[in-house]
Amino acid sequence: MSYARQMLDTYPRTLTVDADALAAAIDATNECAQACAANTDADLSEQNLAEMVKCIRLCLDCTDICTATNRVLSRLAEYDADATRPLLESCVAVCKSCGDECERHAPHYAHCRVCTEACRRCERACQELLAALNPSM
Amino acid sequence: MSYARQMLDTYPRTLTVDADALAAAIDATNECAQACAANTDADLSEQNLAEMVKCIRLCLDCTDICTATNRVLSRLAEYDADATRPLLESCVAVCKSCGDECERHAPHYAHCRVCTEACRRCERACQELLAALNPSM
Amino acid sequence: MSYARQMLDTYPRTLTVDADALAAAIDATNECAQACAANTDADLSEQNLAEMVKCIRLCLDCTDICTATNRVLSRLAEYDADATRPLLESCVAVCKSCGDECERHAPHYAHCRVCTEACRRCERACQELLAALNPSM
Amino acid sequence: MSYARQMLDTYPRTLTVDADALAAAIDATNECAQACAANTDADLSEQNLAEMVKCIRLCLDCTDICTATNRVLSRLAEYDADATRPLLESCVAVCKSCGDECERHAPHYAHCRVCTEACRRCERACQELLAALNPSM
Repeated sequence: MSYARQMLDTYPRTLTVDADALAAAIDATNECAQACAANTDADLSEQNLAEMVKCIRLCLDCTDICTATNRVLSRLAEYDADATRPLLESCVAVCKSCGDECERHAPHYAHCRVCTEACRRCERACQELLAALNPSM
Repeated sequence: MSYARQMLDTYPRTLTVDADALAAAIDATNECAQACAANTDADLSEQNLAEMVKCIRLCLDCTDICTATNRVLSRLAEYDADATRPLLESCVAVCKSCGDECERHAPHYAHCRVCTEACRRCERACQELLAALNPSM
Repeated sequence: MSYARQMLDTYPRTLTVDADALAAAIDATNECAQACAANTDADLSEQNLAEMVKCIRLCLDCTDICTATNRVLSRLAEYDADATRPLLESCVAVCKSCGDECERHAPHYAHCRVCTEACRRCERACQELLAALNPSM
Repeated sequence: MSYARQMLDTYPRTLTVDADALAAAIDATNECAQACAANTDADLSEQNLAEMVKCIRLCLDCTDICTATNRVLSRLAEYDADATRPLLESCVAVCKSCGDECERHAPHYAHCRVCTEACRRCERACQELLAALNPSM
């Protein structure tokens, strides 16, 4: 069991959101942030740098947005829905764009294939958390 | 002139967004992130901690969201509007919430007054940048 | 297998450091950063706030230092040993301090027990990576 | 006056470190983190990408280490010297390496000249803060 799930299970307050959906989004954003940081560096090690620039830029954005989303999701109580919803939407969008670009390079570069998986999983987890959020929150 | 503005003025590409609005948002997000991190610590030094918990939580969220927004705005070319627009909206929302809560404490704590100013300025700068973004971007 | 390990196994360059030690440190820093962010919020939900302030502060520092360490470790090639060694030493130190403080609260709060485990594992992983780094790097 | 300095002047506790040195380091780390993030993107826009790879990697490390240093310095009370000293040393080292590499490109690229200035100023401010820290802290 991930630390994220263990932290949720020992949280002093009653959660107002589904713990499975929340734990999945916390783990996925954290792992996607790391995968994109690593993929930035792997891209920079390839020969055809000019073709990798878009992938590098999207990986940088994806790392930063996933990191912020992870930290905000990790602090549950009294969180601000006005800020959290668009943040999750931004995270879904950047994971979609970054995953699409990584997928273009996946046939050539195994590291882009791994990063595609991390982005797809994170996109899905954030979408499912958005759907699970109580509309009145 | 801030480094942010100097970096924009020496950028190798033609900007597709108003440089004044962009530089203002880059500076405001960076300074708001720092002010909120400092205010978290100042709040933790006060006696009536129970009344400061909401302020602490919002300052933590505001630091993380402003940091991500700053980094994404600092990388201009080929940026992804689908991710950047909701990120800016999230930043506006958290600066509004955090500024409102800090303002409640401003009569008692000078550090919350300073943080209110940083949040209000950042909220305004991000709103103005949203308005300046070409709708087709 | 974690994404971190998969990214290392698909890296375009030959690693100059032991892949097991590196993957362990990358995973441990990422999970410790998240656990500490979650523990900050759990601490803020407890009644005896005044006794939790030191734990909150150390968790905040631990999140920030673990995040930076994770990102730097995730980009392997041409990394700068002069910066990476003291960063790892800083990470070991903050995980030790934060783990010690969390352990004091572990008998009372299960979330501090989970966070202690994350800090201890991260401290150990960063120490082992420091030992594995080629002295000439 | 920067928000960082205003936050220090309104801090509820007595500072145990020189406020001028601390404010200078807080401002310099924050601005250097941003300048390096912007320079990463400017470098990625240049034609001779292969020659810019080292500069890009160092700018990425410098952003992450300066950000962590800034956040830790922004939270003053009860901070852990065992973690803060090596973190400052890491920040000095990465600013030195990144400034040296940017300086190599400064004759050709004005954005690297601006980034050199931000790195040099940050290196100096962190060194001066290290010297100002009470040895017993």
